[in-house]
Amino acid sequence: MTFDRRQAVILESVRRFLRRSAPGHLVKLMSKIRPADFPPIYERLIERERLQIFRTLADRDPERGAQFLVELPTGEGPVVLRALEARQAAALLDLCADDDAAELLAGLEDDEAQAILKAMEPEEKRAVEQLLSYEEETAGRIMTPDVMSLSEDTTVEDAISALQTGADVEVAFYLYVVDARQHLVGVLSLRELLLHPPGTRLGQFMNTDLITVRADADQEVAAQMAAKYDLLGLPVVDDQGRLVGMVTIDDVVDVLRQEATEDIFKMAGTSEEERIEPSILKSARIRSPWLLATFLGGVVASFVIGSHDESLSAIWGLAAFLPIVLGMGGSAGNQSATVIIRGLATGRIQEGAFARTFWREVGVAGLLGILYGVLVGFFCYGLLLFRGGESATATGLWYPVVIGAALGGSMLLATTVGAMFPLLLARWKIDPAVATTPFVTTATDVLGSLIYVFLISWLLFR
Amino acid sequence: MTFDRRQAVILESVRRFLRRSAPGHLVKLMSKIRPADFPPIYERLIERERLQIFRTLADRDPERGAQFLVELPTGEGPVVLRALEARQAAALLDLCADDDAAELLAGLEDDEAQAILKAMEPEEKRAVEQLLSYEEETAGRIMTPDVMSLSEDTTVEDAISALQTGADVEVAFYLYVVDARQHLVGVLSLRELLLHPPGTRLGQFMNTDLITVRADADQEVAAQMAAKYDLLGLPVVDDQGRLVGMVTIDDVVDVLRQEATEDIFKMAGTSEEERIEPSILKSARIRSPWLLATFLGGVVASFVIGSHDESLSAIWGLAAFLPIVLGMGGSAGNQSATVIIRGLATGRIQEGAFARTFWREVGVAGLLGILYGVLVGFFCYGLLLFRGGESATATGLWYPVVIGAALGGSMLLATTVGAMFPLLLARWKIDPAVATTPFVTTATDVLGSLIYVFLISWLLFR
Repeated sequence: MTFDRRQAVILESVRRFLRRSAPGHLVKLMSKIRPADFPPIYERLIERERLQIFRTLADRDPERGAQFLVELPTGEGPVVLRALEARQAAALLDLCADDDAAELLAGLEDDEAQAILKAMEPEEKRAVEQLLSYEEETAGRIMTPDVMSLSEDTTVEDAISALQTGADVEVAFYLYVVDARQHLVGVLSLRELLLHPPGTRLGQFMNTDLITVRADADQEVAAQMAAKYDLLGLPVVDDQGRLVGMVTIDDVVDVLRQEATEDIFKMAGTSEEERIEPSILKSARIRSPWLLATFLGGVVASFVIGSHDESLSAIWGLAAFLPIVLGMGGSAGNQSATVIIRGLATGRIQEGAFARTFWREVGVAGLLGILYGVLVGFFCYGLLLFRGGESATATGLWYPVVIGAALGGSMLLATTVGAMFPLLLARWKIDPAVATTPFVTTATDVLGSLIYVFLISWLLFR
Repeated sequence: MTFDRRQAVILESVRRFLRRSAPGHLVKLMSKIRPADFPPIYERLIERERLQIFRTLADRDPERGAQFLVELPTGEGPVVLRALEARQAAALLDLCADDDAAELLAGLEDDEAQAILKAMEPEEKRAVEQLLSYEEETAGRIMTPDVMSLSEDTTVEDAISALQTGADVEVAFYLYVVDARQHLVGVLSLRELLLHPPGTRLGQFMNTDLITVRADADQEVAAQMAAKYDLLGLPVVDDQGRLVGMVTIDDVVDVLRQEATEDIFKMAGTSEEERIEPSILKSARIRSPWLLATFLGGVVASFVIGSHDESLSAIWGLAAFLPIVLGMGGSAGNQSATVIIRGLATGRIQEGAFARTFWREVGVAGLLGILYGVLVGFFCYGLLLFRGGESATATGLWYPVVIGAALGGSMLLATTVGAMFPLLLARWKIDPAVATTPFVTTATDVLGSLIYVFLISWLLFR
């Protein structure tokens, strides 16, 4: 999404037509921009210009206006709708796909949405209200209700003419076959339709191994299913098994990207609300609670270490090795947590394999803990030799051993927590991608400090 | 990907047929399992059983065998191919999609791949070798070379019969129109074809606003384009602009998921090689170098702090507050880095907006730094009051001020690094998702320690 010379020229022309109040030129120019290329231009306009564009399009070319509206960055569509007159907003939404219209309306206050719905075409209004009756982030909310459904007895010839006249059916790569009660009984692709003689009945060659999703299922479940079975469209059924719509592949792509973003944001301890680039204050408010976890961990660590302050002060360098002990634990714990969370999200780690996965991570952490524990031990020993003085002689070889063991132990403990935390959440059916980084940091600070002061008291101050 | 009762029953039957050497029953059973449902069963079989299944399928139902082969977990397909006889492997690959066959062969050693290629059908062999001539992770490598391309003068009627006879054209939702030199000049959907009278020529109604990708472009670029423009297939052209294939939406979905996984793994300081669940030793080897960054940061921090050991030992609690100062910096830096890296990956943060993005993050960190700096200052003050003794009176109010300023400063510095690092990498056209967590930890350990000892020396030991 770079902003190139061509787009800069377009931006300049848009601005000029807006200044000169030349709506005809503006509409013509807009008809040459691909809707998906519009957001970078939109972002460079001021609010007044943005609204002027959509007002002009709503009155003169609502079809095009609808295409631009659905491509706006997350959160911007409702801002535009709110500023338009209800009839203009309705004219645009009438021409959006029903699921897009529903998503835009869901971003408005109830009374604002009602005012716009009232101005919409009755048929579109009904379809959109139907979608809005499903919870957010369900298959029902993101589906296309316009699916082509025919009976088993339809001939290929009749099916083709139904396709040719069904103007409303936007995405037709699959035809669904239903019985008298709208129950889905078969599916066939457009190409399969073309491969059979005109007189053949659909029931004779339709596929009956059906993959469907319930309308109230989570959108992520629907997306994962469509991706798993390589489907261009996933039929959606209600609680009676009746066909009510289809989740199309472009929505699947959107959901998969959105869920990946959500997971990544959650893991770092922030929220998907940051996707819409809120104000600095809002961002700070979103991130602040997650930092509190780290803060509380640090507070506990300060008690633990503070209560052994005299030991730490008694021997040179004991404070100096704290950051490396805690930092290595945090990094190792995060690696494990990340590998597990993503494995759970993509389905690579299955429910039966939790124990094996956990012990595997502990094994990796054990190896790495030994490696870096030995490494830091040698570093510590070298430093003491180089420095000379009483600390080296007073504690002898115990000093490097304490540091090495504390570092290895901190890595092992942090990994144990980092690996167990998401697996437990997954077992309890809670999204495992919650605030991993702050949580692992907290656990490391507390457990790492504890192991550190414990080893010091035990081995150096016997 | 849960393993349910039904799958357990299937697994039991598979095992029984394998023990009794009943290939007929086995093939019949396999024909009832959806290929995408096979991996959880495959993972529960031992190696000998796995190979026996694919040997049986290669001889008796290679079509089905190919479908199962391409669904295996990443890295397993080549393992199976290597164990089969070349003619069996070739029989399966002949029936895979060309891009899948190329990917499987790319997982083998050159001589192994050559032996199998030699045994393949000449036409399939040529198509696969063509794909293998492109670099890994390019559009050319993942495209389907079988696309339906017709001339502008073709009538709708002829196009439909071409579709009906073109047995090899697997995915036909778009028809491409080319000139005499194979240059792409137009595109139309199957449904648009059906909407026009039989005698109409394709040139009269094809879409000429073409979106194409070069065969040598990165697969991620191709996937992002297809996702952005909501395309089911993205035409791929060579350096002469000739149509050579099409990237289909199912490959786009795979690429987007794979790239999200890669980014997540990289950010935590490990690699996408962990996707294929290597041995514990291999995992440790993959993660180890990234931990070295944290290790070196810790080493530098230990020098910084060690050189001020006497100051730290002189006043109670100075070592105790180190973990919270460094931990808060690490968490805040990671939040910023994560928001920026994901924003860059999804195209939300555009190239022109780097400076604004950076200052925005610094602003957020500034707010959070003040908030938590004040908080830790009060905590510190309370702790000193409660404890009483010489440390509180000797340093007075300066002590909490030092701790609060160090914590706020550490958060601000860590965020500055965490935000600047990915933006700089993006500007230098390097993947920004490199080892964020270890890197931010390193930077925090070093800079946080520096600011800590600096403030202590400056304010407490004047």
